[in-house]
This record gives sequence, structure tokens and C-alpha cells, in this order.
Amino acid sequence: MYLFNELPTATLKSDHGFEPTAQWADDLRLSSVRFNSGGSGSFISSNGLVLTNHHVASDTLHKLSTPERNLIDDGYLATNQTEELKAPDLELNQLVTIENVTDRVNQAVDSGADAKDAAKQRRAVMATIEKESLEKTGLRSDVVTLFGGAQYHLYCYKKYTDVRLVWAPETAAAFFGGDADNFEYPRYNLDATIMRVYEDGKPAQLKNFLRWSSKPLTGGELVFVSGNPGRTQRIFTTAALKYLRDDRIPYVLDFLRRKEILMQQFGLNGTEETRRARDELFGIQNSRKAYTGMLAGLQNPQTMLAKQASETELLAKVKGNSKLSELAGAWDEIAKVQKAKSEMLKQTVSLRSQLYGIAMELVLLAAENQKDNVDRLREYTDAGRDSLLQELTSTAPVYRDLEQVKLADELARLIELRGAEDELVGKVMAGKGPRDRAAELLAGSKLDLVPERQKLIDGGMDAINSSDDTLIGLAKILQEEYRRIREVNEQLQERERQAYAKITRAVNAVEGAGGYPDATFTLRLAFGVVKGYEEDGKTISPTTNFAGAYDHASSHKGQKDFDLPKSWMDAKSEVNLDAQINFVCTADIIGGNSGSPVVNRDGELVGLIFDGNIQSLTSDYLYTDNQARAVSVSGVGIIEALKSIYHANELAAQVGK
Amino acid sequence: MYLFNELPTATLKSDHGFEPTAQWADDLRLSSVRFNSGGSGSFISSNGLVLTNHHVASDTLHKLSTPERNLIDDGYLATNQTEELKAPDLELNQLVTIENVTDRVNQAVDSGADAKDAAKQRRAVMATIEKESLEKTGLRSDVVTLFGGAQYHLYCYKKYTDVRLVWAPETAAAFFGGDADNFEYPRYNLDATIMRVYEDGKPAQLKNFLRWSSKPLTGGELVFVSGNPGRTQRIFTTAALKYLRDDRIPYVLDFLRRKEILMQQFGLNGTEETRRARDELFGIQNSRKAYTGMLAGLQNPQTMLAKQASETELLAKVKGNSKLSELAGAWDEIAKVQKAKSEMLKQTVSLRSQLYGIAMELVLLAAENQKDNVDRLREYTDAGRDSLLQELTSTAPVYRDLEQVKLADELARLIELRGAEDELVGKVMAGKGPRDRAAELLAGSKLDLVPERQKLIDGGMDAINSSDDTLIGLAKILQEEYRRIREVNEQLQERERQAYAKITRAVNAVEGAGGYPDATFTLRLAFGVVKGYEEDGKTISPTTNFAGAYDHASSHKGQKDFDLPKSWMDAKSEVNLDAQINFVCTADIIGGNSGSPVVNRDGELVGLIFDGNIQSLTSDYLYTDNQARAVSVSGVGIIEALKSIYHANELAAQVGK
Repeated sequence: MYLFNELPTATLKSDHGFEPTAQWADDLRLSSVRFNSGGSGSFISSNGLVLTNHHVASDTLHKLSTPERNLIDDGYLATNQTEELKAPDLELNQLVTIENVTDRVNQAVDSGADAKDAAKQRRAVMATIEKESLEKTGLRSDVVTLFGGAQYHLYCYKKYTDVRLVWAPETAAAFFGGDADNFEYPRYNLDATIMRVYEDGKPAQLKNFLRWSSKPLTGGELVFVSGNPGRTQRIFTTAALKYLRDDRIPYVLDFLRRKEILMQQFGLNGTEETRRARDELFGIQNSRKAYTGMLAGLQNPQTMLAKQASETELLAKVKGNSKLSELAGAWDEIAKVQKAKSEMLKQTVSLRSQLYGIAMELVLLAAENQKDNVDRLREYTDAGRDSLLQELTSTAPVYRDLEQVKLADELARLIELRGAEDELVGKVMAGKGPRDRAAELLAGSKLDLVPERQKLIDGGMDAINSSDDTLIGLAKILQEEYRRIREVNEQLQERERQAYAKITRAVNAVEGAGGYPDATFTLRLAFGVVKGYEEDGKTISPTTNFAGAYDHASSHKGQKDFDLPKSWMDAKSEVNLDAQINFVCTADIIGGNSGSPVVNRDGELVGLIFDGNIQSLTSDYLYTDNQARAVSVSGVGIIEALKSIYHANELAAQVGK
Repeated sequence: MYLFNELPTATLKSDHGFEPTAQWADDLRLSSVRFNSGGSGSFISSNGLVLTNHHVASDTLHKLSTPERNLIDDGYLATNQTEELKAPDLELNQLVTIENVTDRVNQAVDSGADAKDAAKQRRAVMATIEKESLEKTGLRSDVVTLFGGAQYHLYCYKKYTDVRLVWAPETAAAFFGGDADNFEYPRYNLDATIMRVYEDGKPAQLKNFLRWSSKPLTGGELVFVSGNPGRTQRIFTTAALKYLRDDRIPYVLDFLRRKEILMQQFGLNGTEETRRARDELFGIQNSRKAYTGMLAGLQNPQTMLAKQASETELLAKVKGNSKLSELAGAWDEIAKVQKAKSEMLKQTVSLRSQLYGIAMELVLLAAENQKDNVDRLREYTDAGRDSLLQELTSTAPVYRDLEQVKLADELARLIELRGAEDELVGKVMAGKGPRDRAAELLAGSKLDLVPERQKLIDGGMDAINSSDDTLIGLAKILQEEYRRIREVNEQLQERERQAYAKITRAVNAVEGAGGYPDATFTLRLAFGVVKGYEEDGKTISPTTNFAGAYDHASSHKGQKDFDLPKSWMDAKSEVNLDAQINFVCTADIIGGNSGSPVVNRDGELVGLIFDGNIQSLTSDYLYTDNQARAVSVSGVGIIEALKSIYHANELAAQVGK
């Protein structure tokens, strides 16, 4: 997960005899895009085509669907540009420049400041740098915290906010095998979707895009992944991993299982309800399975013993070196912060409902607007404003029946977390049970109407103060406590940043610099080779083909999620059954990399990352290439499907050109 | 939920003009049976037929099923007695006598004893009473704790342990509407199964059994329910309800949701896996939905305010009365015990795996056998021995793949509850992660073989000590801690018993005696009237018919769990569509009542309890007949289905005769 401004050229040369040129790296970077909804993608034609995963696009597919037009179940193909469907709130980012601003950030923080002041000073200088950059370049400008706080880089992005759907397969093909096959391998999934970026109402003309390789991959081939891994925690100390194992992940899993059952139950009410809940349910199930795997790894005593042993060795070296010994306290500090985080875990007033989320953002927006830019909460600064407003005015549908169920459950959960006798809970519930109170709150809110939101955005503090919208009222009740909790958590983060900056210094001093920072949902380059693995005494081949897909369906006959869609069954005789469909490689990826292009030495697209195998689920805190593999859709498989199954020859002809 | 030895004759006479004779009550009692697997039933013919719910029988249906013979999906009809399938471990109890032994129990407990000694003394005298009774009568003899500890009654049962399956419908008919319709109304479910009790290898000749009414029910009709409600908590103080609301139920729900997902995931592996997990999954889902409703009621501030108000009023009267004031401390004592219970909640070493459960019972059995009868844990006394051995030597199938998944999850859960650093957890895990350790434990155990269990039963302590079975080894590691936790919990229960005995005295003194004790999974009589109710402004009719079932299926076309089975679709033209299928009444029931006969004034069977509506879910701690309703299958509906759908005319001809 290397930074594009610090590529591992020496390793690539010594281990693989490959020397990427600056041009090679720039082309790849500028052909890569980030989906701000959470995922990666790439430009794949001069006329604006973007490739990503179906499961990255599914948020948009869901928002564009109606009871009559079920894009999730049925897929979509625009036969001409007028049929391309505009996403209601998608923002794509192309990384244009990276600048190291570590010194400027650190100089703005007083060395004697306590965590509260330090966090404030750091937030302020970051807001200033971002605002200056935005004004100067017109680009989206984000200061990114790297190495847990040892470095700060300014990332400038060109934004695309007019993004349209061109082609999506049926979920039965994209998520073939369903939850059962998720994180498994061999796989046979067409987890791909194609969109197009527009500028000024026309397809964007792109200088940088990926050419496609027409050759299937073979074992041993060197490949690269350019994408935005969301988060890793490999710098974490033993104490931090124990916090994950003992507190954080069990808590998150209880939450996810609760929401999984809730969404399932809602779906039982009918086919339309199933459709409405589906996208969220998929996301929850995906997280639940990922966290279950992470926890299993942490619960293996060998994991912690290995981590403890290397930490003990490192600490001994640090303590034994007079130049480093002042850094030794950082491990204790991390341990202390974990304890505090554990105590904060249940202190939350977040209510995960779409409309309540909007209400709280509107209330915070009005209040933050009255402050200087540098004093604002991170997402309300001038540099972030446009993205926030796009989200707040999204025309994505709001389903009141689903909101009712979600809000009632969140109120029940608030009672459980803070206690029924809590004063704030009393104010929130207003003497009613969760179901009745949720119904009352929703009946009194018009926030599903975008013009109502716009009025509150434009009207500022006066409009918020005089609003009789019930959800705005609820957000006003909770605002103060929300801010208090956020403040405490930000101070804990600041203490972690300072401690991990010291640990990074210690590691670099003892083990040498180089390497890469933990993932931060920013663009990174990973590399690896196409390679099978051993599992339970069996050798798993690195590639699969279309014949395997049809076999997999027939050997799971009668099982939900293992039926290929009608388009596939109808086209079986036309499909080249030997064509590659999926493959695995050893590249180091994590959630957020979904949709990343996989390219060969020539920078040609050969695949599309869509998953990791079950052995990769511990990659969050521990990477090995023993069994862990990244799973991709083959580039040649996508073309084969476009031509033979979806009869999208015109689209296929644009790809890579 | 009246005791059969303390029937509410005055109320029945004054409110309904009905005076049950002793004969009427005796006949009903002796026609009622308890399913020890958790449910109720009734004798319905002179030749041993027993009626219960499909969902009560499903445990047996599951144990009798194989990949080739799926009784759960396909149902069953024995066309003659040789085809009747013997249940592997079912015990049915017919309540023969009840004797009040309160004085004897209380006299055996020293008034100055602390909770530990008092619990021990009480357990000892109960074991002695039961043993004496068993030796004298040959009947299963249980001392039952009533009114939270204010009374003790000796219940003597005739046991039937040769129970065979005669007829079961398909789950699609029995559980029509699935989890979505569970606890809802209107309903159209044939949740019924017929078994037959045998004695000496022949159908038992019964003197007492229920005749069947051939008339459909109409609104306002008085009906009676004779069954075994499992547990209510209506005596609970406010502090005890808060413990449920804040600690116990959220904890249980997290557990249930976890297990629900686990069983679902296992089922995703294939149709056979789905079959193996199904019975357990159904039970978990049923509990999850019930507890969710209970919690929602407790989280309604009005529930607690009402309870608090009546408690405050009662306490004022108790404190103001010099004869009662000494009882006032009982409420504080209950509050203190709740705090201790809350601290004990996560202290568990139970591992919910079928084979581990057997291992722990074998280990405890050997140890308890070496003690005097009066000193043993409750279920290991002489009086309980036969039931325990029947369970331990059950030929019910053990599925090792399912055991692997369950045991691995339970080990993971043990780590979460006690912490990975806990010394005992370290011994249990033996340096491995949950999945690997579960695999190792199962590979080294032969407890799925009944002869292996029998050897350990017969071999006693020596056999246990020398056993190298890995699960026996695990049980030996956990035995001491299991006993410690159980001891602490039993002392807390003793303190509650003593406090609730005082509260019962206070209530009786202030409000007058009479009424009924909280449910204890023993035979009770409830009564009510057939009656619809208002919901969201709509009037719900008290009865449904077969036409409604077919309509319900077609209006939910395409939804899982709403397809009627083929037998129903094929027979549609033969079925009397006007025949009653389900009805609701105001009788006070709770889990455990499932399978209870509903009879009319003439003692004729008119229905079969199978559910409560969603408004009844708070009945655990609060009963009202405003909207809460018991839901039953109509007796006439069962006969109609037997004749017109299942072509079981021979069986139908035996019913009620």
C-alpha cells in the first residue's frame, strides 16, 4: 500500500526486475479514481467511461431504482448516451497532486499544548492549508494524516460530480454465490459496473485512461493495484489490538448482527420492502463477515504472542538507545488511550436514520457557519463545503416505512446504551416507547423533501431556530452531547497521533525507513503476483473461467443466491467457456480497494479488484502472502460478458480506447 | 393461569355463570399432558392419540429426519400403526396429584440460616420429598416453587416415554407466513401434529381424553385453556423489571441475534445444512421476536411509571401497617439481588453445543452419584434420574459439521465474555484459535456414539477419570467454575425466593388472597372469551377460515414462507373454504402453553393454542385483555384438513373417540 510519492522502486527492481517510470506511475495515478461513497475505480476510455465494482456502484443503483425499475435485480444497459442515468449524489476524485506539509502542520501545534488545544490547533492549520489550496487551485484539497500522525500530506483532487450509469449486470451475476461465497475462493463473479463522467453536460474528454490487455493472466505474472484502501491498523500496538479484540470488534459485531436482523425482518414484509432494504443489508452482511474474520484472527493466541514478541524486542532496543529512550513512553500512552476509548465506546448519541442524519447535519451546518473557518468541525470547513452540500441536497429516495423501523430501533438502542433513566434519553423519548416516538418524529418532519432542506440550508441559524420540524428539534436536543462526545474522541485521537508519531520514529530508527503508512482511503499502489494457494491440503488454482460459473450454479441447484440470471443461461451457447472470469493475486488490499484496477507491467488493465479471500481478513492488522489473496474480475472476462451475454458491443468497443 | 387445586370458581360463576364441577376439572387435568421438551398437549382418543403443535413436535420431527426423509419440509402420515415413528427422547407427563408441602419445606430451613445454607437445606428437603413420593407412588415427583417462594406444591406425574409420530403437516402449512407472520394476527396456520403414546409396545388405553366439538366458535363464547405456561414475571418488582430492561433482555437479544446469524450462515452452505440448522434456527427466531416485543414494552416509559405507581402505593400501605412493616425490606432486597445478578450475567462457562452439553452432564453425573441424594444438584437426584438418563442416551442424530460451527462460536463467545487473558480461558483454548480448537475437541470425542456415553454412565467416576475423550476433558476443566457460578446463582435465587415470599404475604394482606402464582411450566387453567380487537383503527375479526389462507398466499405471491404446500393447492376444490381455521380469545397464555387444548363449557376440545399476538408479548410481566390475544388452531379446522387435504380419514375417525 505504497504512497504514489514514495514508490518502492528499489524493491520492485530487485525482486521483480521492474522499474516503473515516472510516466508509468503518473498515468496510472491519473487513470485511477476514488468513489467518495466508499470505493475505487478507473477511467477506461477517452470519452469518460469509469469501471468499478457492482457492489461499489450498488449504492447508486439502489438510489436510482424504483418499484418498477429494479436496477439491483435486473441490471441495466444504456443503449445510447441519452439513456445513461445520472447518479443523485456521487462524487468521483482524481488525484492530481500530493505535497508533504508535515512541517507546517507540526509548527502550528504548540509543543506544550494539551491534547485539547493541540487537536484544535492541528484542525485549524489543516483547515487553513486546505482553504488556501482550494482557492489557489480550484481542486478539492484534503490534508491527510499518515503514519498515525508522523506525516501530513496535502492531496489535491479534480472532482467529477456528474456521473451516469452506463451498464450494470444483475446482482445474481455480480454477487453470484451471495453471502455464502463472499470472501471465498474460487469465485465466478462479474462484480463490475461501468459509469461515465460528464462535464458541462457532455461526456468528459479524458487524457488519462487505462488501455486493456487482451491476454488472459497466467500464474507468476507481476500485477499492480491502484486504489484507495480504506483503513488498516498495522501500526497498532498490542494494547490497541487487545482493545479491538476485547471491546471494539465484539461491540461492532453486536451492532451489525442487530441491524442485519432488523433489515431482514423489514424485507419479510414484501418484495418491495425487500428491495428497499437490500443495499443496506448487503453492506451490513459484508461488514459482519469481515469483522468476524478479523476477530477470529485476533482471538488466535498465536497472533497476539507474535505481536507481543516483536513489540517487546523493539521496545528493548528503544529503551537501550539513549537517543530513542524518550520515545518508549508512547506505548504506555497508547495503552492508556485504549482504556479511555473503551469507556467511550457506548457513549454515543448517533441515531442511524437517513432523515435524522440530515437533520443533525443541518443543525450543525447552521452553527458551524457562524464560526471562523479554522474553528469549524472538519467536514464544515470551506474546503469541504461543496461535498457536504451535494450530500444534503441529494435526490436519493427516502423510504418512510424503512425510516420508521430504523429510527425505532435506534431509539431502543439509545435507551440500552445510555440507560432508560438517563436525562437526555428522557428528553428524546418524550414519554413514549421507541415505536410510537419514532412514528411521531417522522410524522412531524418534511426533511425527505429537498426544498425543505434547501430552505434550512439557506435560512441559516434563524431558520433552524424557528423550525418546527420534529427531527430538527431532536437534533437540537442532541447537538450539545454530540459535540461533547466528539470533542472527547478527537482529543483521544490527538493523543494517539502524537504517540504513533513517536512509535513511527522509533520503528524507522531501529528498522530503517521506507515501507508505507496505514491505509487512509487515499490512493496507494500495491503489487503482487498472480498465484494460487494451499488450503486444507488442496491446491487452489489462481484463475477461474466461465465454464466454472455454470458448473458452480448447477452443483448448488436449489440454493438461494446460486442461480445465474436468465441472460447467462440464455447466452450459454454463445459464451467462450474457457474465457477467464476471476483470478487471485498476492497484492495487499483492504476494504476501499473494491473497484481498483489491476494493471500489468505495461500499465494495461488486466483485472478489477472485488474481494479478498477469507484468509485475507486479518490483513487489517497483519499482512502475509502465505494464503491471503486479493480476488479480481478478469478484464478479458468483462469484455467476454459484455459481448456474449449482454450484447453490449458498442460499449465494449469504447473500452480501452 | 390458575392452579388446578385453586380454581377461580367464584369469578367464573359471577362473571360467566359457569360452575365447573370437580369431575369437569379432573377430566380436563387428566386429559392434559406436558411435553418435557417444552410445550403442552392433550389426549384426544381412547387409543393414545396426543394433539400438540407442529412447533412443539418439531424437535422430534427434526430428530427423526434424515437427508432422505425430511419430515419438517414434507410432513408425515402413518397409514397404520407400524408406520408410527418412535421419538428418540420424548417424555410426556400427565399430572395425577397435587399436594401442598409448603410447611414441610419451610420447616426444614433454619430461620437464621444464610442464603447459602438456606438454599442447601431447601434443596435437600425437596429432594427427600420427591424421593419418598417416587418410591411410594412410582410417579415422577416434582416439588414446585410457587408465588416466587411463598408456597411449595408436590406434583406427581404419570410418565409416557414411548411416544410415536402419527401425523404432521408440512412446515409450509404449520408455519404459514413464517417469521413475518409469527406473533401476528389474522393467521391461517395448521400448527398441529398428532402423536400416540404407547405402553408396553402397544397404544396406551386412556380413560381420560377430550371429546371434540363439531361446532365452529362464535364471538363471545367462553373457553378454557389447560396447559403449562413456562414462565411469567408478574410478581416482579420495579427493580426486577429494570434489570430485565437494562441488562438481561439486551444481553439475551445480543446472544439470540448472534446465534440466528450463525445458523443462517451454516444453512447457506447447502440444502442439507439448511435442514440440519432449521429447527434450532426456528426456535432462536421465535425467541428473538418474543424478547424484542418484551423489551419494547419495558422501554415504554408508561409501563414502568404504572408499575412504579402501584408499587409505591402498596409499599406505603405496608409501611403504614405495623403488622406488615417488617415485610417492607423485601423490595430493597430484590433490588440488591438484581445488582448482583447483573454482575453475574456474563459469568458463564456454558458452551451451547450438543456434545459438550452431554460431556458436562456425564462429568457431573459421576460426581453427583458419589453424594447423598439430598446433597446433589437438582437434576441429579434419584427422583430426576430416569429423565436425565433418557436424555443422555437419546439416539437423536448429532451433526458434526453443525457442532463444529456451534462450538467454535461458543469458544469465541467465551473469550469475549471472560476475556482472552482469563486463566481458565487459556486452559480451554490450549493455545489455539476458536475454530482450530473446536475442530481438535470434536476430533478427539466419540460422544456422538450412544454406547460410548453408556460406558461413561456405567463406569462412573473411574471411567470419567480415565477417559481420554477430549470433550470430557474440557468438561473436567470447566466443572469447578461451573459449580461455583451455579452456587452463586442459586444463592441469589434463594434470596429472591425469601423476598418474594414476603412480598406475596404483603400483597395478600393488602389486596386479599386468591389469584394465581407466576407460571412455572406446570399445569394451569386459563379462561377467556373468543373476541376480536381494535388495531390501528381497524377491527380484527376473531376467526379466520380456509378461504383466507388461500387469499393470504396469493396476496403474498413471490414471498418466501407464503407458499402453501402442494397438498393444499391440489386439494383446494375439495376443502370447505368456509371452515374455521384459526381464532383468537382473551385467555391468558405464555410460552409453554403452545399445544394446550382449548375447551368449551362442556369440556369438548374446540381449539389448539399455538401463538399469542404481538400485543401479548408483554404478558410476561403485564397481562391485559385490551388487545392481547391467544391464537389457536380451530378443532374443526384440524378435522377439515385431515379429511380434505391429508386424506387421513382413518385417523380423523379416531379423534375424540
